[in-house]
Amino acid sequence: MTLDVRHVDLLAVTGGVAGARSDPVSVEEPLEIRAEGPGQGATQIAVTMRTPGHEAELAAGFLFTEGLVRSAEDLLRPPVRELPVEGGANNIVTVRLAAPFDAERLKRNFYATSSCGICGKASLEHLHANAPPIPVSGPRFARSTLIRLPAALREAQVAFARTGGLHATGVFDAGGKLLVAREDVGRHNAMDKAIGRMMLDGQVPLEGRILMVSGRVSFELVQKAAMAGAPLLCAVSAPSSLAVQAADRLGMTVVGFLRGDTFNVYTHPERIDLDA
Amino acid sequence: MTLDVRHVDLLAVTGGVAGARSDPVSVEEPLEIRAEGPGQGATQIAVTMRTPGHEAELAAGFLFTEGLVRSAEDLLRPPVRELPVEGGANNIVTVRLAAPFDAERLKRNFYATSSCGICGKASLEHLHANAPPIPVSGPRFARSTLIRLPAALREAQVAFARTGGLHATGVFDAGGKLLVAREDVGRHNAMDKAIGRMMLDGQVPLEGRILMVSGRVSFELVQKAAMAGAPLLCAVSAPSSLAVQAADRLGMTVVGFLRGDTFNVYTHPERIDLDA
Repeated sequence: MTLDVRHVDLLAVTGGVAGARSDPVSVEEPLEIRAEGPGQGATQIAVTMRTPGHEAELAAGFLFTEGLVRSAEDLLRPPVRELPVEGGANNIVTVRLAAPFDAERLKRNFYATSSCGICGKASLEHLHANAPPIPVSGPRFARSTLIRLPAALREAQVAFARTGGLHATGVFDAGGKLLVAREDVGRHNAMDKAIGRMMLDGQVPLEGRILMVSGRVSFELVQKAAMAGAPLLCAVSAPSSLAVQAADRLGMTVVGFLRGDTFNVYTHPERIDLDA
Repeated sequence: MTLDVRHVDLLAVTGGVAGARSDPVSVEEPLEIRAEGPGQGATQIAVTMRTPGHEAELAAGFLFTEGLVRSAEDLLRPPVRELPVEGGANNIVTVRLAAPFDAERLKRNFYATSSCGICGKASLEHLHANAPPIPVSGPRFARSTLIRLPAALREAQVAFARTGGLHATGVFDAGGKLLVAREDVGRHNAMDKAIGRMMLDGQVPLEGRILMVSGRVSFELVQKAAMAGAPLLCAVSAPSSLAVQAADRLGMTVVGFLRGDTFNVYTHPERIDLDA
């Protein structure tokens, strides 16, 4: 990962002593995601506060984890970023869909299905995950593999070490090999970028893969992981009650507090091989 | 703070040894925020994934920090929670406004001004903070006061110690006395709850007050703090680039990495008295 960071001037205080310094901070900027179909103009679908970089993956991953795109074949060509005005508000990425779409339905659907922190949803009922259950088949995952994931993700997480301000999502194979890692100020964006990369490469559903996140597990992350068909979601920190409920119902294994050689298995422990 | 936590069954793994255990996790549930005016039916304004508790404060604070309500006098009476179905999706809170309102304009305004992670905003331009600048007058804040804030907030943060999964916002006076502290799975909700409490008590704008958050500082948190008129926003972790830019422009002092006796002042250091 080679994300831009931005340096800001600050006053560093230790005890009663203050000194001027310039430190890197993680970059946060709005991105407008648009969709357009053959013969149709671009329609604004969403705006997200994100860390610049991997805009095409973020847009593709967002539309995929929100259920509006099912595979790379639904795209006419990869999303393109337009008007990349440095530091400005004109950051826009457009996803060109292979088939015409109902813009109004798309917008309504987005409003209804997104589980972002606060959003204009049509009704609460739509909050429930509409992802299909994860198949029970597929490889089991070795304890010895799991405990190596946090270090592997941290190594890939270049920007965090410099700014202390970024979430990360990694996609690993069942042997613990890192396939893709992405960072963002928003944990949902980091996951959308990683899943978007896999989707654009024709690598979804994520059968036999492991998703690993650097922080906590919310309902939203379980829902996105489920849309990608991930059987195992690991996290350095705690899951929420609704994340556990959703994962249990969807058949997803959730591992939390993965630190050193300890971890908690919250749901579907049958996928974890403790003796390997 | 006396937030409910929920216990979940899990498999705790240390080395090759696994044992069944029941641990508390932080509760995450959707809340629908509605508004209604005299002679008008209730209109859905937003849905947020939040930790149950302090629903009236959350709804009032949300409408206030989004600029839809200016003071407690704009409310006919405090928001009421309805249909509190335990563990279900029917969590709704209704804010009764003193004057009739334009429901369509309110919804458009919300879509346009909210800076939640991903949201259906009318356009990027509206993302810019529309909060008034913070007055330069008011007390300075002593270094010796600042370095006591993290411990004071942690002491008040009951649920985090048990679940490891909650963000907190505290409001302190200039002498470091804690006035209100609130927790939530969403950092924006924790701040809306704390600011909502102050607003309902007629204690906004937050002149001479300190807002302290347990995590990172995003643009969204600076915007909400600015809507409440807070001159000083302190955080345990890092700010983003856009948070620093917005605070600089709005005249707000942002302190980050407040740990032990060290901290960084990112903007407007003139409000910090290093010798006191």
